[in-house]
Amino acid sequence: MRKVAFLMGSASDFPRVEKGIAVLRELEIDCDVRVLSAHRVPQEVSGFSLNAESAGFGVIICAAGLAAHLAGAVAAHTILPVIGLPLSAGSLQGLDALLSTVQMPPGIPVATVGIDAAVNAAVLAAQILALKDKDLNARIIEFRRKNTAQVILADKEIREGCR
Amino acid sequence: MRKVAFLMGSASDFPRVEKGIAVLRELEIDCDVRVLSAHRVPQEVSGFSLNAESAGFGVIICAAGLAAHLAGAVAAHTILPVIGLPLSAGSLQGLDALLSTVQMPPGIPVATVGIDAAVNAAVLAAQILALKDKDLNARIIEFRRKNTAQVILADKEIREGCR
Amino acid sequence: MRKVAFLMGSASDFPRVEKGIAVLRELEIDCDVRVLSAHRVPQEVSGFSLNAESAGFGVIICAAGLAAHLAGAVAAHTILPVIGLPLSAGSLQGLDALLSTVQMPPGIPVATVGIDAAVNAAVLAAQILALKDKDLNARIIEFRRKNTAQVILADKEIREGCR
Amino acid sequence: MRKVAFLMGSASDFPRVEKGIAVLRELEIDCDVRVLSAHRVPQEVSGFSLNAESAGFGVIICAAGLAAHLAGAVAAHTILPVIGLPLSAGSLQGLDALLSTVQMPPGIPVATVGIDAAVNAAVLAAQILALKDKDLNARIIEFRRKNTAQVILADKEIREGCR
Amino acid sequence: MRKVAFLMGSASDFPRVEKGIAVLRELEIDCDVRVLSAHRVPQEVSGFSLNAESAGFGVIICAAGLAAHLAGAVAAHTILPVIGLPLSAGSLQGLDALLSTVQMPPGIPVATVGIDAAVNAAVLAAQILALKDKDLNARIIEFRRKNTAQVILADKEIREGCR
Amino acid sequence: MRKVAFLMGSASDFPRVEKGIAVLRELEIDCDVRVLSAHRVPQEVSGFSLNAESAGFGVIICAAGLAAHLAGAVAAHTILPVIGLPLSAGSLQGLDALLSTVQMPPGIPVATVGIDAAVNAAVLAAQILALKDKDLNARIIEFRRKNTAQVILADKEIREGCR
Amino acid sequence: MRKVAFLMGSASDFPRVEKGIAVLRELEIDCDVRVLSAHRVPQEVSGFSLNAESAGFGVIICAAGLAAHLAGAVAAHTILPVIGLPLSAGSLQGLDALLSTVQMPPGIPVATVGIDAAVNAAVLAAQILALKDKDLNARIIEFRRKNTAQVILADKEIREGCR
Amino acid sequence: MRKVAFLMGSASDFPRVEKGIAVLRELEIDCDVRVLSAHRVPQEVSGFSLNAESAGFGVIICAAGLAAHLAGAVAAHTILPVIGLPLSAGSLQGLDALLSTVQMPPGIPVATVGIDAAVNAAVLAAQILALKDKDLNARIIEFRRKNTAQVILADKEIREGCR
Repeated sequence: MRKVAFLMGSASDFPRVEKGIAVLRELEIDCDVRVLSAHRVPQEVSGFSLNAESAGFGVIICAAGLAAHLAGAVAAHTILPVIGLPLSAGSLQGLDALLSTVQMPPGIPVATVGIDAAVNAAVLAAQILALKDKDLNARIIEFRRKNTAQVILADKEIREGCR
Repeated sequence: MRKVAFLMGSASDFPRVEKGIAVLRELEIDCDVRVLSAHRVPQEVSGFSLNAESAGFGVIICAAGLAAHLAGAVAAHTILPVIGLPLSAGSLQGLDALLSTVQMPPGIPVATVGIDAAVNAAVLAAQILALKDKDLNARIIEFRRKNTAQVILADKEIREGCR
Repeated sequence: MRKVAFLMGSASDFPRVEKGIAVLRELEIDCDVRVLSAHRVPQEVSGFSLNAESAGFGVIICAAGLAAHLAGAVAAHTILPVIGLPLSAGSLQGLDALLSTVQMPPGIPVATVGIDAAVNAAVLAAQILALKDKDLNARIIEFRRKNTAQVILADKEIREGCR
Repeated sequence: MRKVAFLMGSASDFPRVEKGIAVLRELEIDCDVRVLSAHRVPQEVSGFSLNAESAGFGVIICAAGLAAHLAGAVAAHTILPVIGLPLSAGSLQGLDALLSTVQMPPGIPVATVGIDAAVNAAVLAAQILALKDKDLNARIIEFRRKNTAQVILADKEIREGCR
Repeated sequence: MRKVAFLMGSASDFPRVEKGIAVLRELEIDCDVRVLSAHRVPQEVSGFSLNAESAGFGVIICAAGLAAHLAGAVAAHTILPVIGLPLSAGSLQGLDALLSTVQMPPGIPVATVGIDAAVNAAVLAAQILALKDKDLNARIIEFRRKNTAQVILADKEIREGCR
Repeated sequence: MRKVAFLMGSASDFPRVEKGIAVLRELEIDCDVRVLSAHRVPQEVSGFSLNAESAGFGVIICAAGLAAHLAGAVAAHTILPVIGLPLSAGSLQGLDALLSTVQMPPGIPVATVGIDAAVNAAVLAAQILALKDKDLNARIIEFRRKNTAQVILADKEIREGCR
Repeated sequence: MRKVAFLMGSASDFPRVEKGIAVLRELEIDCDVRVLSAHRVPQEVSGFSLNAESAGFGVIICAAGLAAHLAGAVAAHTILPVIGLPLSAGSLQGLDALLSTVQMPPGIPVATVGIDAAVNAAVLAAQILALKDKDLNARIIEFRRKNTAQVILADKEIREGCR
Repeated sequence: MRKVAFLMGSASDFPRVEKGIAVLRELEIDCDVRVLSAHRVPQEVSGFSLNAESAGFGVIICAAGLAAHLAGAVAAHTILPVIGLPLSAGSLQGLDALLSTVQMPPGIPVATVGIDAAVNAAVLAAQILALKDKDLNARIIEFRRKNTAQVILADKEIREGCR
């Protein structure tokens, strides 16, 4: 199975993304975590992106806040699916990062998830990789089942609590 | 190769999405085009989504405007990657559809592209399917090359025109 | 008198909605409280909605944050009045939930109240049920009178305090 | 069956609301259409609202643009359900009207539908009245069925057209 | 000299407006402070507004949050200048109150100041009353001079501190 | 009676403001119309503002779009009431002008009316001047009466038309 | 004198930027006009930016719409001043481009001008280059004088026309 | 080398801007720090701006929140490059200040950086001055190198930490 790259624009983004990394591990997906800034180390970003496919990556998650260019900068250099994870850094609370990530020009898509939605970035990466991996597919189904079970349990508790 | 489903919430969305359908054809990807409304035919939506994988689909594109629930409604019933394409119907010009599509709860991601970005929805679907299809991979690279060539040609023309 | 269903998309929404549940109780309206997620337990949502009328419900309140699809998902399966209560979960502070709830397509309305306005969701449900229940009508008038009396008392105190 | 009042803040709003009036007629609901401005004829608004219940109204729809106070002004004087229909007059395209209508203080709800969503205002009024009117209930179900049939027909046409 | 009425929609607004009341006192302007809700005590609001001129008021300041209708409701019943002071109550941080206050229909203006700008509401009231009161005019000029002096002093301190 | 100054930031703003000028004339208020840009002719703006009171002006209306600084620049140099009229020039449709006009710092208020609300700017100016002019007061009351009569007539026509 | 580079992300941007190119010519500044897309020809963008200083450029203007990454991508590879010109392409009317351009991370600034403000991008470039070019300085002063003269003429005409 | 002026609209802005002042010092750029309010001391602002060039300044940074007119007011009186630094004071979190700063009318540009981006204001000023100062140019390159080194170090640490 191909690996997932989990890139973030700044080390300070780590607390906002670590739940997503945990989900990748729970789903037994091999994952490289990197700090790569589109503006501060652009050569590393393009170098990484150009080599990502041959290095064994299948999906690249790019987390960034503010004028979040990281996902777009990566997508410009690879045709691997790139997942954009906008972060709520700064006073505009992620609206800037969301628009900077999702409004890509024709031909260079970024698969954008919600603001600070690190778990969804991870699950989406898993769903993409699962298209050719039956075992991963089964693990995602199991992951969802747990999710569903939690909602059903919470429902039971609240119904009883509110009687 | 698995097929792509291109769903839209209303027949009136067709003019906003047809460029994306054309891109899928240019990339020789088999594609079913459907009008399926999350609110007006919810059973059809869940039925389609539950059967999508066994029906041979690999990716589902969901185009919708306003309170665009279609992508989320589909994603609730399948673990295939779901691409959300928010449309600029209505007076808020797609901001409503963008937020309704991208801000999904943890565990149920929608891979969202830009407002009215039908071409990017199609290219993203292709990139996902290309992970296990070398020929498609080659066609996407060729598609990008043409895209690049157009920019380079436009650059040449404008440089000369502006001298 | 028909019952009110008070649904929320996640157990974590409870603190934001409990004032509304209290108002329903103060107005002596029978109320079932549920955790039902449009995306995590979609079958339960559609099952509940399809049976809501025969189960004795008259109004369904749906509280959700982010891409708040719950009210729309319920409204797709019933013609009972559905009240949407958008919550301020996440970094966009409920603007996403408001637009996802209120901007429904033609034919499938959601009666939307303000962000985090759990009390208003409850009062609106009561006003709807009161159309055919004179006693409830009287209790709502009394509820309003208390509300008014509080404002008049506050006015008196502040006028004296500011002299 | 109680009547519906369809109020609008200005005669210039008529083209934006007439589809809603047509839906009420299609559903055979008796309806009074009025131009009543919260700011230009406030006495008429409060007078109308105070007498609405005894005059045989069951639901009041209030359409207004800009700082759309009409629904709130009516709701301040009656405990009948008040439906707010924000209109996209002015340069902010209805965002002002939406927030002015939906963000009501605790105790005085307005059941808000989408911007320019006149059809949904009418359908919501019908759904509320149908709680105690089996015939209307049946007509709404039939109205929905037609709506659904249109989507299914559009789906069929587009599937064939895109083959 | 005519008095200023300083109305607020809820007693909980007092901490946001008290600086404005203090400015009116500093400028020796007679001021009545009231809690009057457009939606909870509409008759008191219209009664107050209709009598405001004969009761000796010259300007009415209306502070409110959320769907802030108070200033508009007052302006509908008087031709005294009405100053709207939108407050940042609720999760939208006053954008709702700003739009609900300022976007009035033609013919019924509200003189709107910034969100939570209680001091400016008071100064504006003073400037209006000063048009026919030379002593107040002089006090406002003195008030401004102090304001200016503070900036000049702060400038001096920071220049020295940053050397 | 003091005059009103009606300033606009650019000659291209004239079509958006002329209805306001017409209202001032209808109310028989003497009015000087000027094109004065805060950024292109700042000396003229400060010169005008410093002399406005002695030149016989009582209220200054400032219409501007984009980063609409004109009202603030005038208010910085006079304690006459300054009315800010934000215009919908540019792609943000007046939201920029509204915020630039209304969000003034403490001590220097601008009495802001709605986007493109030239009529309201004029009426507000009249209401301020009417505080010491009984004849103007009467003309405003008559102006309102006509306004009200139009709404009542429109109401009558639409009631009959919709029967 | 160093040259100005005027880059745009797409040839379709030309009509929105040509007024800026005209201003550079009017100010006798040597200017290269290019179509360079951050996402479609990233190597050309980085190559151009790395060589810009040695190629004789002093300032780089980058015009782009949507998720406007061009200015940031250039700024990542040069320490020449980079001017960002956000364009109103797409349904969000330039708000996306503005935020994507201006909200750069610490250390990599983009000097952003208003949406579609091509003239200001050109004037800003000129002002920067004029710091070491007295003749250009004089031409900018003359340019401003004409600008001022136009406002004064417009003022004269409107004063006379409105008498 | 010319000096930089670092102006702020209020002494309370100092904590938001001091990192920028530190960067100017680190880059050995001579800098005057001032509190100058466009609205409270307009004469000082115009006086300072008119004399800035002859007083040895090369770039003027203007930090302000709310209706941030300071940068525009300075730019109206000088053709030195003016950098606008919008601050997140007030409940709209800097969106008001951003639009008030960046949306300048044609001919009077303000080089705007991100909300609260004091470091970027300083770096941009340095980049402009470095056009004619080789030593400063070298110091900026060194400053960037440190910035880059930090990212590379953070990348190394996180890669190891996440293994």
